[in-house]
Amino acid sequence: MLYNTACLCEYLGTAYSGWQRQPNGVSIQGVIENVLSGVFAEPVKIAGSGRTDSGVHAMGLVFSFKSRVYRDPFTVTKALNCLLPKDIAVLDTVPAPENFHAGKSAVSKTYLYKIINRPVPSALYNDRALWIRSPIDTERLNDALGFLTGRHDFASFCVKKTKKENSVRTVNFARASRTGDTVEIEINADGFLHNMVRIITGTCVNLVIKGGRPETIKEMLAALDRRKAGVTAPPHGLYQKEVFYGKSGLPGLKGIARQL
Amino acid sequence: MLYNTACLCEYLGTAYSGWQRQPNGVSIQGVIENVLSGVFAEPVKIAGSGRTDSGVHAMGLVFSFKSRVYRDPFTVTKALNCLLPKDIAVLDTVPAPENFHAGKSAVSKTYLYKIINRPVPSALYNDRALWIRSPIDTERLNDALGFLTGRHDFASFCVKKTKKENSVRTVNFARASRTGDTVEIEINADGFLHNMVRIITGTCVNLVIKGGRPETIKEMLAALDRRKAGVTAPPHGLYQKEVFYGKSGLPGLKGIARQL
Repeated sequence: MLYNTACLCEYLGTAYSGWQRQPNGVSIQGVIENVLSGVFAEPVKIAGSGRTDSGVHAMGLVFSFKSRVYRDPFTVTKALNCLLPKDIAVLDTVPAPENFHAGKSAVSKTYLYKIINRPVPSALYNDRALWIRSPIDTERLNDALGFLTGRHDFASFCVKKTKKENSVRTVNFARASRTGDTVEIEINADGFLHNMVRIITGTCVNLVIKGGRPETIKEMLAALDRRKAGVTAPPHGLYQKEVFYGKSGLPGLKGIARQL
Repeated sequence: MLYNTACLCEYLGTAYSGWQRQPNGVSIQGVIENVLSGVFAEPVKIAGSGRTDSGVHAMGLVFSFKSRVYRDPFTVTKALNCLLPKDIAVLDTVPAPENFHAGKSAVSKTYLYKIINRPVPSALYNDRALWIRSPIDTERLNDALGFLTGRHDFASFCVKKTKKENSVRTVNFARASRTGDTVEIEINADGFLHNMVRIITGTCVNLVIKGGRPETIKEMLAALDRRKAGVTAPPHGLYQKEVFYGKSGLPGLKGIARQL
């Protein structure tokens, strides 16, 4: 019998080649798997709620893994935080149902794109937010993002791994808000395509800055052609913020944080 | 005739030996002076609104300098942000009155101490906030901090450079607030002694965590003895947040940021 376990983690992606383990480069997945394999004294493979690119961060990414040995979840959290580098932290660990998979069981995920919007750069948010000098009208940005909500083929807003890849997804919400000099774009969908949030952000923000019509986004979407959309925003403003598993999914995660 | 200029800056102190220029170690002051001397093509010395220790950050530190050459303030801001390392940013530059001095002209300054208060560490705030596992009761923390407001001799809450140094200061406010897992302590005073905010933070937070009486702070203050107060909180949670110059002081600083 194998024990299934899920962990909630946050990390600063700056120093890593991305989530996914790879032969060249240090990945988040690789670092966590190495540490977990030591903690469980057996080779442990983890499944993530999503794969983040190099330089992308996470505030709430979930990963799950199976082990032959049972370890108390609180002990796993503490051991991981002792052994992991300081730019990766485990926020909580819970026993998961047998068929739970951090990626496949996810009902929806939220990504956050952080922008520092002012005439001068930020020393404190360097590598943690995109600096944009030109004023962003968040009302118009919200108009543009609004055309992306619902079930659509996002072929114009992704990089396809294969030509045949199905690029239909449901965006539950896509919205922007401003707090002082910080503009945040949050997108929740049942699944994300490669570079989807970064292309949406780059395209919509540029459109609004240049005074384009928000309706243009609708036309770009209909074109089903990556070349019709705009630039890909850089990775360092992007965060995987939250994963939702529905009622039956994964009770109790974040329970430790709620203890306070 | 010399032109007097003031700049508002922010920086991440992690990589530096502190604000003050010194023979060994890279200081914020040293880095800025080197860049400014290039921009003005003459040796430029700057005066800061305060000296931060190694590892301490700034959200709004002001420095001023005199130059024989006049340069447009907006150009100075842009040139500095092009030439300074990414962990130091200039937010605004303004011409200053002849007798203005970023340190001596300050009426009061606000320091902020940031704490991540939850059972698990933070990957995103590593080096930018102090992690404290035990729950902090901010109401009791505010009771403790309350005893420090007003005009007092803070001999118990500082490291004196000389035995005779006058340690009487006026604390205008000292308060704590919680937003989620983040606890912030803000202290505004007409001047700060060496390690004052860090000793106040370490002492008050420890007292509250250990269930001590907030009134103990009053007794520590009255003792005029550093040994009667508690530990010095580490530098990486501390930020110089704001400097106030009064009505006559320095009009227009932060004007660029307000342009948005």
